[in-house]
Amino acid sequence: MLNEVRVRLQEISDLSGAAAVLNWDQATHMPSGGAASRARQYARVSRIAHERMMRPALGRLLDALVPYGESLPPDSDDARLIAVTRREFERVRKVPPRHVQRANAIGAASYHAWTKARPANDFAAMRPYLEHMIDLSREYASFFGHYSHIADPLIDDVDEGMTYASVRALLADLRSELVPLVRAVCEQPVVDTSCLQGQFAPEAQVEFGLSIACAFGYDLTRGRLDRSPHPFCTKFSRDDVRITTRVRADELTYALFSTLHEAGHAMYEQGVAPALAGTPLGQGASMGVHESQSRLWENVVGRSRDAWEHYFPKLQRVFPDQLGNASLQRFYCAINKVEKTLIRTEADELTYNLHIILRFDLETELLEGRLAVKDLPEAWRARYQRDLAIAPPDDRDGCLQDVHWYGSGVGAAFPSYTIGNVLSAQFYAAALRAHPDIPQDMRAGEFVTLHGWLSDNLYRHGRKFTPAEVVQRATGEPITIKHYVNYLRKKYGELYGLRPAAAFAQ
Amino acid sequence: MLNEVRVRLQEISDLSGAAAVLNWDQATHMPSGGAASRARQYARVSRIAHERMMRPALGRLLDALVPYGESLPPDSDDARLIAVTRREFERVRKVPPRHVQRANAIGAASYHAWTKARPANDFAAMRPYLEHMIDLSREYASFFGHYSHIADPLIDDVDEGMTYASVRALLADLRSELVPLVRAVCEQPVVDTSCLQGQFAPEAQVEFGLSIACAFGYDLTRGRLDRSPHPFCTKFSRDDVRITTRVRADELTYALFSTLHEAGHAMYEQGVAPALAGTPLGQGASMGVHESQSRLWENVVGRSRDAWEHYFPKLQRVFPDQLGNASLQRFYCAINKVEKTLIRTEADELTYNLHIILRFDLETELLEGRLAVKDLPEAWRARYQRDLAIAPPDDRDGCLQDVHWYGSGVGAAFPSYTIGNVLSAQFYAAALRAHPDIPQDMRAGEFVTLHGWLSDNLYRHGRKFTPAEVVQRATGEPITIKHYVNYLRKKYGELYGLRPAAAFAQ
Repeated sequence: MLNEVRVRLQEISDLSGAAAVLNWDQATHMPSGGAASRARQYARVSRIAHERMMRPALGRLLDALVPYGESLPPDSDDARLIAVTRREFERVRKVPPRHVQRANAIGAASYHAWTKARPANDFAAMRPYLEHMIDLSREYASFFGHYSHIADPLIDDVDEGMTYASVRALLADLRSELVPLVRAVCEQPVVDTSCLQGQFAPEAQVEFGLSIACAFGYDLTRGRLDRSPHPFCTKFSRDDVRITTRVRADELTYALFSTLHEAGHAMYEQGVAPALAGTPLGQGASMGVHESQSRLWENVVGRSRDAWEHYFPKLQRVFPDQLGNASLQRFYCAINKVEKTLIRTEADELTYNLHIILRFDLETELLEGRLAVKDLPEAWRARYQRDLAIAPPDDRDGCLQDVHWYGSGVGAAFPSYTIGNVLSAQFYAAALRAHPDIPQDMRAGEFVTLHGWLSDNLYRHGRKFTPAEVVQRATGEPITIKHYVNYLRKKYGELYGLRPAAAFAQ
Repeated sequence: MLNEVRVRLQEISDLSGAAAVLNWDQATHMPSGGAASRARQYARVSRIAHERMMRPALGRLLDALVPYGESLPPDSDDARLIAVTRREFERVRKVPPRHVQRANAIGAASYHAWTKARPANDFAAMRPYLEHMIDLSREYASFFGHYSHIADPLIDDVDEGMTYASVRALLADLRSELVPLVRAVCEQPVVDTSCLQGQFAPEAQVEFGLSIACAFGYDLTRGRLDRSPHPFCTKFSRDDVRITTRVRADELTYALFSTLHEAGHAMYEQGVAPALAGTPLGQGASMGVHESQSRLWENVVGRSRDAWEHYFPKLQRVFPDQLGNASLQRFYCAINKVEKTLIRTEADELTYNLHIILRFDLETELLEGRLAVKDLPEAWRARYQRDLAIAPPDDRDGCLQDVHWYGSGVGAAFPSYTIGNVLSAQFYAAALRAHPDIPQDMRAGEFVTLHGWLSDNLYRHGRKFTPAEVVQRATGEPITIKHYVNYLRKKYGELYGLRPAAAFAQ
């Protein structure tokens, strides 16, 4: 009977993988003329996958499997498969197909409008769309009944087990640590980043980034790198997990770190145990845990002095005219420059979370109805002024800058990024406790110990355990900002020559 | 009611397009690890499309539409849509899903075995597969009952309206014209092709071929060119028709003419009237008519002196070191060199059809049971010796050379190529009667008149008319070898300096 469930889940997984191929092609290779038919093709295939996930026959099989599931050791693959499939089945069933269709249609129209409104700096054009998107989020929440806060079902969807209250507490704690640290850093002299500017052949940039991703552990026999306007990672199956990047000929880090970021996501998916593939267990545990892996490889490893001791001489050989005279220390400072800027995606590790926290607060107010859409641009400006001492001159680089609210939804769009940052340091600290030689390995261009520890403690489990269980099992404690704060203080304290007192000051 | 049929057909068309994307990605970009899941994804999506084409509800709608169809002008889009959909529905319904599944499984296993057996020159390994493939063809034919020859249903499938008898007669007539012409040409001095050999940067080769395809009329806003081991054309929708090519750095024509060939197929699909898209009318009329377009653009235009008067100086500028000293006439002779060789896909225009005719005869004997699979290698050698005065030293370049019998089927695998050759000249002659300035345009690099005539008289009709109707309407006569024979005699008579008497001699 469980076998029949597996067959059905494999079929759904195959159809979802097929839909992902359609999506990937659209973002990477599709000629413009293909857009209209591709939208239909994607909608058809994903709808069939969705319909198969809510078939009553699957529900009957799951009902019949209850006694078997209860007879199993609770941590066994089969018990977890039954439980997670049941959870997924119930979730999908609670949402009427009519809502899904409306959400897709409005989301697509809104996204399309945003691609035009942002360059035109036309927030007025997006107002009705954003109002619709907020209504959709509220309606979605309403399908799940009992919650303490309207954002709870939205947050639980992407970061299972977390709530508005727990996210808010985590972000507030982090904010109180970050604000004085950012202040102390920004009082220091401005870092020189001129070594990152110049002319860098795009092909060579992409190849170099990919070579590092492969050294980290990204398996190209089960993946590939293409270019797209917005970098992403997508999975067609456990053995075909692809990433994309984008390149600027005049800036060295733009392609590099997006490649390492997406490779972090991809290694997680590539590392899921084969036995879990083709089922709801065969994917990352949550958005936040997923983001911890992109951030760990992009930042904790990818922007570390240890890794660049190995890679900087290689990079100099690729771009001798541009980097021949730069020192490792100068390069290391440049790729970790802290600066209060307007754009989240270009923010450094320290200020990044301030961008997230203010978005979380604003989307909560929108969702609760305490902030009207028409007042968003002004609220955005005021908040940037308060938190980052800089206000956007227009909405293009203000409240229109991120696609999330205009394309996917309002209410849980951003916290996963910061949860990921927090967990990246927590996982790394645990790996370091198990293998103190990791930094030394990295200086030799060896990442197999770290990748192996993550594979054993995180990747292979997929979604078998809840995010909270995964964190507890891998690190021996619940999610905590402690390791992340220590990591930031140490790294940026050294980088900016802060006296320990300043770094610790409130 | 017809609208409901259209909605169903659009959905089937979208699913088929989605399956084609999966297939294209597999042939062009997919990492090796993705193979197993891709096979499943492709099978699932195509099976869903197939199931939807044979749903009884569609049959009931078509039944109910009979009076409406009869009330319409017989040449109207709607009348033809109802008739062709009915034909397609009945055809699909006659073939049990069990057969489809077995044919797919055996075809895939056989293809996979062939990819290994051919390089290993191991015909014995392919014997059981080929026997299975022949059985499958016989079983398929059996679903269609009354036929004069067992190949009739197979031929009708790909070239509607033709039969074993009509194909055989066409090929026999053509053979009797070709044999003396090939003999006369081969008595002439051997053509020097050294200007085609050398080192040619792959990127530049591909770009040059694509620039010609675009000048012919291939629309890159609704298509693109990638590389794959075997060139092909695939359609995701009318507005996304893609082609592939493959490149040899040491040979100039390998990429070039395969690009023009596939662009010919693609322009046909791109040119179908938008009103027919998403229905069974929204595609080429038949394999033979399709092949007429690849051959017309590859050979009649692409290997003409007229077109190269414009393009040869451009090609010289791309490869000045290699072609700077060659003359147009020498290049023109080289790309049209006639030679009795072993490999069909590398054959010239004249001998190409001899390769096809002998394959058609052999597959007929296999299908009828007059030739045993074990005797195929010897029969192949004997026939090459007789028809082309050259015998393959092994099976790799003998009866294992083409994938068709080992991958897709036995019985109607090859004649479409020669039907296409014949029709390419017939269509071109008709276009020339309507627009005598076409050769002059080509010498100026202008192809819009020819492309326009083909669009109006062929492309836009899609599969609205039968192949025989299409040929009659566009050329004013039924299919005839006359124009093709005239074309070959004139072109090769001039190229090889034959006296008219020799060219015409039997």
